[in-house]
Amino acid sequence: MSQDTITAALLVIGDEILSGRTKDKNIGYIAEYLTNIGIDLREVRVVPDEMDEIVEAVNRLRARYTYLFTTGGIGPTHDDITADAVSTALGVELYEDPRIIAAMLERLKPEDLNEARRRMARIPVGAEHVVNPISKVPGFKIENVIVMAGVPSIMQAMMDDVAPRLQTGARMMMETVEATGVPEGTYAAALSDIAKAHPDTIIGSYPQFHEGRFRNQIVVRSKDGAKLQAAVEAVGAMLKTMPASPR
Amino acid sequence: MSQDTITAALLVIGDEILSGRTKDKNIGYIAEYLTNIGIDLREVRVVPDEMDEIVEAVNRLRARYTYLFTTGGIGPTHDDITADAVSTALGVELYEDPRIIAAMLERLKPEDLNEARRRMARIPVGAEHVVNPISKVPGFKIENVIVMAGVPSIMQAMMDDVAPRLQTGARMMMETVEATGVPEGTYAAALSDIAKAHPDTIIGSYPQFHEGRFRNQIVVRSKDGAKLQAAVEAVGAMLKTMPASPR
Repeated sequence: MSQDTITAALLVIGDEILSGRTKDKNIGYIAEYLTNIGIDLREVRVVPDEMDEIVEAVNRLRARYTYLFTTGGIGPTHDDITADAVSTALGVELYEDPRIIAAMLERLKPEDLNEARRRMARIPVGAEHVVNPISKVPGFKIENVIVMAGVPSIMQAMMDDVAPRLQTGARMMMETVEATGVPEGTYAAALSDIAKAHPDTIIGSYPQFHEGRFRNQIVVRSKDGAKLQAAVEAVGAMLKTMPASPR
Repeated sequence: MSQDTITAALLVIGDEILSGRTKDKNIGYIAEYLTNIGIDLREVRVVPDEMDEIVEAVNRLRARYTYLFTTGGIGPTHDDITADAVSTALGVELYEDPRIIAAMLERLKPEDLNEARRRMARIPVGAEHVVNPISKVPGFKIENVIVMAGVPSIMQAMMDDVAPRLQTGARMMMETVEATGVPEGTYAAALSDIAKAHPDTIIGSYPQFHEGRFRNQIVVRSKDGAKLQAAVEAVGAMLKTMPASPR
């Protein structure tokens, strides 16, 4: 990979995703967001609300990619253990941040600041806040790990806050060529040849199935605009030579 | 874990999910499906269309869980490498299955059965078919690995075909208690006490944010109906003692 490649993993933390009760809306959003700012999302994991599972995944993923983003598990209840798991993984202590306590007291009466809510004010020593304009309790960034809420609207606001602080690389550009009426199996060999002839591009073929028919799209991606265009033109020219027939 | 616990992981294979171009619809479906038949989905990973990444993930996940399901990468194009990766991971050869060739010839003229399409007829030695009633080319099951299509309608049909062949355990039952008007931070300590007092249940608290307000749901899960009910009743009784106030 070139020097300007910045990579990331996403760790989604939550029993509710694995049980199917909650349908994740964060993976697709974060994938698209990172692509648009020039960070390559390379891996996603979903793990349950269990300390050992989270710690192991955090340590594997933060060692392997430029950044690790996490979603979920930062609320006040007993199943919210992300801050504890990240501090364990990194070998740093949690402390109660008085700035977070102050922010919480803008919304709460002092008598409502109970022990469970104080848990949300704990961040690892050395962490920066990731601002939460909605419910005020921030996420945090420590080393290359960015800890965000699981509630989509709050996560999205946190991404906007942390993104300007991240290193970004060359943006991956993408063009889609509709292969309407030409089955994948018909163009597969020719497409493979194009992929080999255009090494700084990534070419994929994506079938969709609608109303009893396949509709295929060929997607070309590259960080180099000229190479992207050359591959897109090659794909277009190739498709013109193909007969239409069933997949 | 009790003897009747059957676990699974899901490996989603595809650059298009990691780039955000395609929004995954399979994770939530499979999570809910497996929960309903008594298989606990314990982990999900999303990896790119790269041999080393797929092989490593297949070997980690199949060793760790009762079953590993994969989606994506079984079409005819150069980026479809799941069968190759699974055969590499398991150390078995791929062969061209004449039954799959015959099924393909029900839809194709013999002259359209090119090399790319023949690739889709390759399955590992010893694999069983997972029937695909839509486009006929099957997925497969070998040892504890179940390889399915990424196109949602085809994957769903394949799940229906393979499910009766799987071991299943006690079904995880679930009840949701609405905590309307009571903030998470208010009930967190009491809920933690309930979770400790009901060891064969899993209790989670899930905030949703709608129109400027949190709406919280407490979800109790258990494989034991009586223990589930006891915990649900404890949660309901606890909530009645709580004052409403901002989170």
